Amino acid sequence: MNIKFKNARILKTDIKNHSFEIVSGELWVKGNEIYYIGDGNDVGNLPGENEVLVWEREYDCKNNLLMPGFKNAHTHTAMTLLRSFADDLPLQSWLYDSVFPREGQLVEEDIYWLDILGIMEYLTSGITSNFDMYFFPPMNAKASVDCGFRTVQTSGLNNFGGSCETLEENYNVVNDMGELSSFIMGFHAEYTTSMELMEGIAKLCEKYKSPMFMHNSETELEVKECIERWGKTPTQLTDSLGMYKYGGGGYHCVWMDDKDFEIFRERGLYAVTNPGSNTKLASGIAPITRYLKEGIHLALGTDGPASNNCLDMFREMFLMTGLAKLREMDAATVPAEEVLFAATAGGAHAMNLRDCDSLEVGKKADIILIDLMQPNMQPENNIVKNIVYSGSKQNVKMTMVNGRILYEDQNYFIGFDPKEIYAKANTIIGRMK
Amino acid sequence: MNIKFKNARILKTDIKNHSFEIVSGELWVKGNEIYYIGDGNDVGNLPGENEVLVWEREYDCKNNLLMPGFKNAHTHTAMTLLRSFADDLPLQSWLYDSVFPREGQLVEEDIYWLDILGIMEYLTSGITSNFDMYFFPPMNAKASVDCGFRTVQTSGLNNFGGSCETLEENYNVVNDMGELSSFIMGFHAEYTTSMELMEGIAKLCEKYKSPMFMHNSETELEVKECIERWGKTPTQLTDSLGMYKYGGGGYHCVWMDDKDFEIFRERGLYAVTNPGSNTKLASGIAPITRYLKEGIHLALGTDGPASNNCLDMFREMFLMTGLAKLREMDAATVPAEEVLFAATAGGAHAMNLRDCDSLEVGKKADIILIDLMQPNMQPENNIVKNIVYSGSKQNVKMTMVNGRILYEDQNYFIGFDPKEIYAKANTIIGRMK
Repeated sequence: MNIKFKNARILKTDIKNHSFEIVSGELWVKGNEIYYIGDGNDVGNLPGENEVLVWEREYDCKNNLLMPGFKNAHTHTAMTLLRSFADDLPLQSWLYDSVFPREGQLVEEDIYWLDILGIMEYLTSGITSNFDMYFFPPMNAKASVDCGFRTVQTSGLNNFGGSCETLEENYNVVNDMGELSSFIMGFHAEYTTSMELMEGIAKLCEKYKSPMFMHNSETELEVKECIERWGKTPTQLTDSLGMYKYGGGGYHCVWMDDKDFEIFRERGLYAVTNPGSNTKLASGIAPITRYLKEGIHLALGTDGPASNNCLDMFREMFLMTGLAKLREMDAATVPAEEVLFAATAGGAHAMNLRDCDSLEVGKKADIILIDLMQPNMQPENNIVKNIVYSGSKQNVKMTMVNGRILYEDQNYFIGFDPKEIYAKANTIIGRMK
Repeated sequence: MNIKFKNARILKTDIKNHSFEIVSGELWVKGNEIYYIGDGNDVGNLPGENEVLVWEREYDCKNNLLMPGFKNAHTHTAMTLLRSFADDLPLQSWLYDSVFPREGQLVEEDIYWLDILGIMEYLTSGITSNFDMYFFPPMNAKASVDCGFRTVQTSGLNNFGGSCETLEENYNVVNDMGELSSFIMGFHAEYTTSMELMEGIAKLCEKYKSPMFMHNSETELEVKECIERWGKTPTQLTDSLGMYKYGGGGYHCVWMDDKDFEIFRERGLYAVTNPGSNTKLASGIAPITRYLKEGIHLALGTDGPASNNCLDMFREMFLMTGLAKLREMDAATVPAEEVLFAATAGGAHAMNLRDCDSLEVGKKADIILIDLMQPNMQPENNIVKNIVYSGSKQNVKMTMVNGRILYEDQNYFIGFDPKEIYAKANTIIGRMK
C-alpha cells in the first residue's frame, strides 16, 4: 500500500561497517517498496517525481523508531505444536520419546495452522522473515503467502524421509510461489543423512547454483561421531563434497575447529547462531567473538519453538552477546551493534534477501516500528544498545512485510482470527496425546 | 479496593513442594487482601460471611491466568539513569570511568524520578515488589509509597559513604513509612567495606534481630582478594562476624566454596541469583543446580538496569535455568517449576514478605494477570513451562500491588504521566554529560 510514515526516527544501516545511524524525518512506502526517506521537503529527485502519490494512510510515528524487521535465520516454525510439551529433559529423550513420535503423526494440513501460529508470534517480535526447515515445504510456503509473510525455506531432507527428487521438486515449486516465498538447497544434518543423499544434494547445488545450509556442529557429540565416520568435521565433509561452491552456511556452528573457521571465511559462509536453543538444550556456547574477529558472516535465529521455547529475537540478541561475554569472560566482547547487524542485515544476506536488509530507497518495505516511549527504552542514552540489551516484544508497535501492515498495536491483519488459530493448535496436539 | 476477578485461572503455589496447581474460578480482593478463592458459589465460610461486599469492579479474566506477582529480589532501581550509558566495556572501566562519576553527581530528588521510571518498568514485567539497595533510602521509599508499589530496602553502606548511625536511622525511618516500605540490615560488599563498619553492622543485626544481605561472591576476583585480606571467603568472614544470626543471604553468590554452601544451608540463607547481570558483566554462572540439590533457598533478581540493562523477570527466569543447563551441560537441570518458585515465593521469603508469596485467602493482593491468549503461550501444553520458557512482558495484562491496580493494558495508574517521567530521566542524565 502507499503509506507515509511521518514524525519518525529512522534507523539507517551502514552495511560495510556494521554500524547504524538514526535520522529524523519521513519514510514513504509505495506498493511494496521504500520510495523515499528524508525530511518530507526535499522530494525533487524521487524516481517518479511527476507522479502524484495517493496516500492510503499517513502514520504518525510520534518520534518512535522505524527500523528494518528482524530476520529469524533458523527455525522450524510448525514446531509450535510441541512448545512446552517436553521440557527439562535430557536431549535424547526429548528428541526420541517426545518430539519424533508426535512429528510422525503430523499431516500436511496441520503444518498450515501451526505455521500461522508461529507467524503470529514472529510478528509480535518484529520478525519480518524466517529461514525455515520443516516437513511439507509447499504447505509451509502457502501459510506464509496467505498471511502476507516472507519465508525462505531450506530442506530438512534426511534418511527418514524425502529424496533428492522431492527436494528438487520442492525447490522449484516453492521458488515459484511468488515473491514472499523462496527456497535454498539444504538438508537436515550429516548425522541423519547418508553419503548417497549428500552426494545427490551436492549435484543439485551445482545444477541450480544454489547456496547450501544444514545443521552443523550443534553438539560436541555430533562432531565427534562425524569425524569417526568420515575422518572429517561436518564442515570439512560437506565442503569436500563441493556443497558450498555457491555459498551457504550452517545452523548453530558451536563446535568448530580451525579448519572449519578457515572454510567459513574463505567460502564466505554464514554462521547462523541460535543461542536460545543452545542454552535450553545445553549444547554449548558458539564462538561468536572469533567469528567476528575473522570477519565471518553472522546471522541469528531462534531455532524451533520446541527447543527455545519462544520465537523472540530480543531474547536471542541479548543471548548472542551475553553468552559470548560469559564464554570469553570479557564484558566488552560482541558489542550491541554487531548483534543488531546480525539480527537484521546479516540474516537477510544469509537468506539471500538482499533487498530486505536495510531501510533504503528501493528496498522492500519490511519495516517495524519500535516504541521508544516505554520505560525500558528510557532514558535515551543509546538507542541501539537499548534495543539489544533492554528491548522486548512489548516495544513492537507495528510490523510491516512487503509493504503491508500485518501487526499493529497487538492486532493481527493476516486474515485469521487468533482464537481460531489457538483452537486449531490445541486440537492438533490434543489428537496426539 | 474491592474487586472480583471472574472467569480466571488461578495459579496456586505448594510452598512445601515448590510446585504449582491451576484452578478455575474467582478470586476476590477486599481492601488489600485476598478474601476468597473458589468457584463463586461455595462462599459459606468466608471470614465475614454476613457482610455484604460492594464490588468497585468486576474484572472478567476471560480464562487468563492470575498468579502471584514476581519479586525482584535484588536491584538498584534508580540506576535507570545509566541504562545503555556505557555498555560493552570491561567491568573496571564501566564502574570507575562511567558509573561512579555519574552517581557522585546524583542529588536526592533525582532518585525519586529515576525510581519511578524503574517502578513503571517493574509493573510492565509483572513485578509487584523489589529488594532495593541504593542511595537515599527514605527518598527511595517515598517514590514507592507515592506510586503504591511495595519496596523492601537494604543498605548500600560502604567506605565511600554513610555510617552505622545513618544505617540505623534509615532502618527506623524506612520501616516506619507504612506497609509498602520496609528495611532489612545490609551493606554493599566486603571489598568496599572496612572491618570497623562490618562489626558495627553486625551489632545492628543483633540489636534489631534483622537478617543481613550484601553483594556476595559476584566475581572470582572478589573472593580471591577477600581470602587474601582475611583468610576467609566473604560468606565465611561475615558469618564469623555473627551477621547471619537472624538469617539473610547474599546477592549473586556465583563463586562459592564447599564451606560457603554449608553456611548457607545451615543458616537457612537465601542465594539471590542475578543471571542477566552476571551474563552482561561476564561474572560467571551461579551454581543453581547445587543450591537446589542442597535445599538452599533461592530467589531471583534483575540487578540494576545499568548492568542488565532491563528490569524483566521473564528474561531472568529463562537465564536462571538456561545458564544452569549450560554450566552443567544437562538440559534436564533446574526445572521450570523451581525457577517460577524462586521468582515468586522464594523472593518473597528472602524479602521477609511472608504474606505476599502466593495466592491464598488472607495473603496480600499482589497479583498479576497473564494473557494466555497470545501466540507465545499456545498451545497450552504446560502453562508453567510456557511462562518460564516463552513468557514475556507482552503477556502482562495487569499488575496489582496491595489491592490496587497499578498497571493495566499498558496504562499506568501511579499518579504520574509517563512522558513527564521520561523527560525527568533524560534531563538528569543530560545535566551530567
